[in-house]
Amino acid sequence: MDPIRFETEPSRYRHWKLETDRGRARLSMKVDENGGLRPGYALKLNSYDLGVDIELADAVTRIRFEHPGISVVTLDSALDGTFCAGANIFMLAHSEHGFKVNFCKFTNETRLAIEDASRHSGQRYLAALNGTCSGGGYELALACEEIILVDDRRSAVSLPEIAYLGVLPGTGGLTRLIDKRKVRRDLADVFVTLAEGVRGERAVKWGMVDAIAPRSRFDETVAARASALVDPARIGRAGVSLDALAPPESEDEIRYRHLTLRLDHARRLAELIVEGPASVPLIPDQAAALGADFYPLRLFREIDDALLRLRFNYPQIGLVLIKSAGDLGRVIERERAMWERRDDWFVNETILMMKRVLKRLDLTAKSFFAIVEPGSCFGGALFELALASDRIYMKSGGAARIATGPLNAGALPMGNGLSRIHTRFIADPERAEALSSGRTFEADEAMEAGLVTAAPDDLDWDEELRLAISERLSLSPDALTAMEASIRFAGPETMETRIFARLSAWQNWIFQRPNAVGERGALKLYGQPQSPQFDFRRT
Amino acid sequence: MDPIRFETEPSRYRHWKLETDRGRARLSMKVDENGGLRPGYALKLNSYDLGVDIELADAVTRIRFEHPGISVVTLDSALDGTFCAGANIFMLAHSEHGFKVNFCKFTNETRLAIEDASRHSGQRYLAALNGTCSGGGYELALACEEIILVDDRRSAVSLPEIAYLGVLPGTGGLTRLIDKRKVRRDLADVFVTLAEGVRGERAVKWGMVDAIAPRSRFDETVAARASALVDPARIGRAGVSLDALAPPESEDEIRYRHLTLRLDHARRLAELIVEGPASVPLIPDQAAALGADFYPLRLFREIDDALLRLRFNYPQIGLVLIKSAGDLGRVIERERAMWERRDDWFVNETILMMKRVLKRLDLTAKSFFAIVEPGSCFGGALFELALASDRIYMKSGGAARIATGPLNAGALPMGNGLSRIHTRFIADPERAEALSSGRTFEADEAMEAGLVTAAPDDLDWDEELRLAISERLSLSPDALTAMEASIRFAGPETMETRIFARLSAWQNWIFQRPNAVGERGALKLYGQPQSPQFDFRRT
Repeated sequence: MDPIRFETEPSRYRHWKLETDRGRARLSMKVDENGGLRPGYALKLNSYDLGVDIELADAVTRIRFEHPGISVVTLDSALDGTFCAGANIFMLAHSEHGFKVNFCKFTNETRLAIEDASRHSGQRYLAALNGTCSGGGYELALACEEIILVDDRRSAVSLPEIAYLGVLPGTGGLTRLIDKRKVRRDLADVFVTLAEGVRGERAVKWGMVDAIAPRSRFDETVAARASALVDPARIGRAGVSLDALAPPESEDEIRYRHLTLRLDHARRLAELIVEGPASVPLIPDQAAALGADFYPLRLFREIDDALLRLRFNYPQIGLVLIKSAGDLGRVIERERAMWERRDDWFVNETILMMKRVLKRLDLTAKSFFAIVEPGSCFGGALFELALASDRIYMKSGGAARIATGPLNAGALPMGNGLSRIHTRFIADPERAEALSSGRTFEADEAMEAGLVTAAPDDLDWDEELRLAISERLSLSPDALTAMEASIRFAGPETMETRIFARLSAWQNWIFQRPNAVGERGALKLYGQPQSPQFDFRRT
Repeated sequence: MDPIRFETEPSRYRHWKLETDRGRARLSMKVDENGGLRPGYALKLNSYDLGVDIELADAVTRIRFEHPGISVVTLDSALDGTFCAGANIFMLAHSEHGFKVNFCKFTNETRLAIEDASRHSGQRYLAALNGTCSGGGYELALACEEIILVDDRRSAVSLPEIAYLGVLPGTGGLTRLIDKRKVRRDLADVFVTLAEGVRGERAVKWGMVDAIAPRSRFDETVAARASALVDPARIGRAGVSLDALAPPESEDEIRYRHLTLRLDHARRLAELIVEGPASVPLIPDQAAALGADFYPLRLFREIDDALLRLRFNYPQIGLVLIKSAGDLGRVIERERAMWERRDDWFVNETILMMKRVLKRLDLTAKSFFAIVEPGSCFGGALFELALASDRIYMKSGGAARIATGPLNAGALPMGNGLSRIHTRFIADPERAEALSSGRTFEADEAMEAGLVTAAPDDLDWDEELRLAISERLSLSPDALTAMEASIRFAGPETMETRIFARLSAWQNWIFQRPNAVGERGALKLYGQPQSPQFDFRRT
């Protein structure tokens, strides 16, 4: 199959229409039935596949960077009587396990990006449900700050996955009901087992939506609410156009501007090599004048693209070595300059983007080893790439250095809400704070401080790395995925971590169960005349 | 296969020896190789199966009730050079999915009971690792307050599951490393992928054990530490002997003293019918004089036994209706009297037992509907049975009442640390507090307060229940299990909830994966000459 591409832009959208108007954006879903990413299914009733969600993710990012004047985004449907029917079942039923899991993960990340925009960029999302909204459609609505449902005795919100498909509303649905909207557990129980869902007053009373409006006053109600949320101070702010990354690629290399992804398919090993910044340009009064070439923005967009390709296009790759090359001092100097200007919207958006990309790394089901050698430039946000790795190997006795900078202290939190250093030293917050505050470490100091896993010297370096790599690649990929998902996230749980741990882990379990995916399973038989046949033993 | 029995007592132990001596107990593991619960595997090197863990669970409970003078329990092995090799792999490899999941759940509950005893009963557990300690053996040690390892250049602690079996250290192992011992994530990563584990100074330095001692001084070191922990004030406290429940049973009924479990196998439906207390006896100065007949102790021991039988012996049962019959006023009166005496060790132990049984209910993978009718006595701790249920149906227009009492306000917390009422009203803590404080509710009031799910009247009662029951029984049992595991636990996460959600859910996923359980999977092939063959695609 052709590899999946994650770059797009509004003029190429097949499934969404983005309009902007004085502080407000309208993002309308009108899925092209014949525009599926793969052949074999029709995207009826605004059902979606990965391609639809790639466009949504792109739109959410572009609204932040290209339309910073927007403070309210209305999410609606250009289809009559249907908001969205959720993920396309035929696509799901015929996808491989790994694809299903990665599809759900990406969709979850996109929805969290919507909430991140609402919370941190002042771009609040309003779900205007102008028709029936079920499954993943309602899960998308749940990611918005407010939900308004048309009250026409017909349009309902529902999570029919359990009743119809024998799977969970696993794209945040159960978690957002309970943790975000704080719906009472027994009402949630009734709701998620009721295929037809709830509508009208009951939907408001049970907490599934925030407001209802009759069809005759629906548009006006939505418009009034959107107007009330507009922040006039932002209108007119000029955006930054995000150009295409379009990296040249071959079978075993993708070469971005600041990043190279090398693939050793035979060994199931990849290298992700970051190049440090070439210079330390002044940040102008309007930082946005730097445009999409701004080093950290460009680099982290590239990392994001590389991670998504690794997940979807290279399932066999089990271990990724993260390397870097450049001037460590310049990395930190750049970051200090950036940090001083964090009140600028563009600098802030760039930091938020870096945060999301690093979270994507935390959630990528590959092993990562960071390799720190003389000439490496793991400092500040680049050091976060190492902190997000499962292990850090640093060559001792030479010129290798690492450094913390202003962004390590909390500006790039993990899903658990803590910095990676804080999470690493969860037993010792004071040490975490001391280490975060802009220091440079040689290998022995880094080892002593607990910032790296091992610091072999010249003599042992090659052999120790060789052994660690070959050992890692010999282990069960499933055990590693589950192990990494467990030990990467010390400390508190948040709605976000619960989505990826509790909810996704259970969904992945179900995605293996014959009751869902077997020949007579509910997911497999959906839309066919036969009824599913369950093995009713409870586990 | 014969149904599993969960009752035992020390004179019948085949795998453990319990000795007590002036404030200290010694619980020594010496697993009878030929004493497996099922034929087909030998329990070599102190490896364990469910039968071994049933005895351990029994011992932990009996030490609390029968030996309240004990304040330190040393856990060691009567085998030379081996503490414990963990769960028996051949047993695991040849068990059905549902059994594996329930076995791990029970083992997890037992380990949490050890921590509960350390924290709440002042009976602190000390793991004395007088030899190699791997897998589930080390997970057992992790449940103790302190771990002392013999330092003999040979004995290591290890979690070799990932390297040898392609599964997780899923009985709390990963979670306790990270959340309890707060081991740095990269050291944890190295440790759990290193089949041989760590020993000596490194085990202390990395945080896997608290202390080491050479073999020549091992016994003396353990004894000194145990002596230092003894609470002399408790020595001599007289215990309460726990008699056998030994309920008469037939194919479709188990009749305990205060509880009846009825099984409708054809419909996959069970009823759990609680009988209220017969009278309100005075609690004497030494509450322990009431003995094991003390109503709440007996009743909750019975509920515990019934839940375990439901999980293991009746996998086809999908829905359990919880009913009660008795004098609601008397239930509350009893509970008030009990609450006033909560400083008495026996009353306290009984409340702690009730707490653990209710947690077992929260974690049971069946649907529960509580049925409240005229004549029901769902008050206080009995109302917790309803609050732990997925739904509560209460008949309106008649004499049905529910009541809260002193135990609803926080004495019986869920695994998340909150009361069930607080968890139910996670959005509104003030309401939770107001409802917890000893009030009686008719159906309409209960409905208004949000304490029940539905309150049909006489006319609709039968039909509404019939529909709800038949709908529930038609749904995918897997989807229900995963859904219930998600929505029963609103609010904060704790080490305990993370064990059952994040860790167990991932382990359950692995227990379905061909890389572990397929014909060429690592778990299946363990101990055989062939190497496992992995599908290396990462999900």
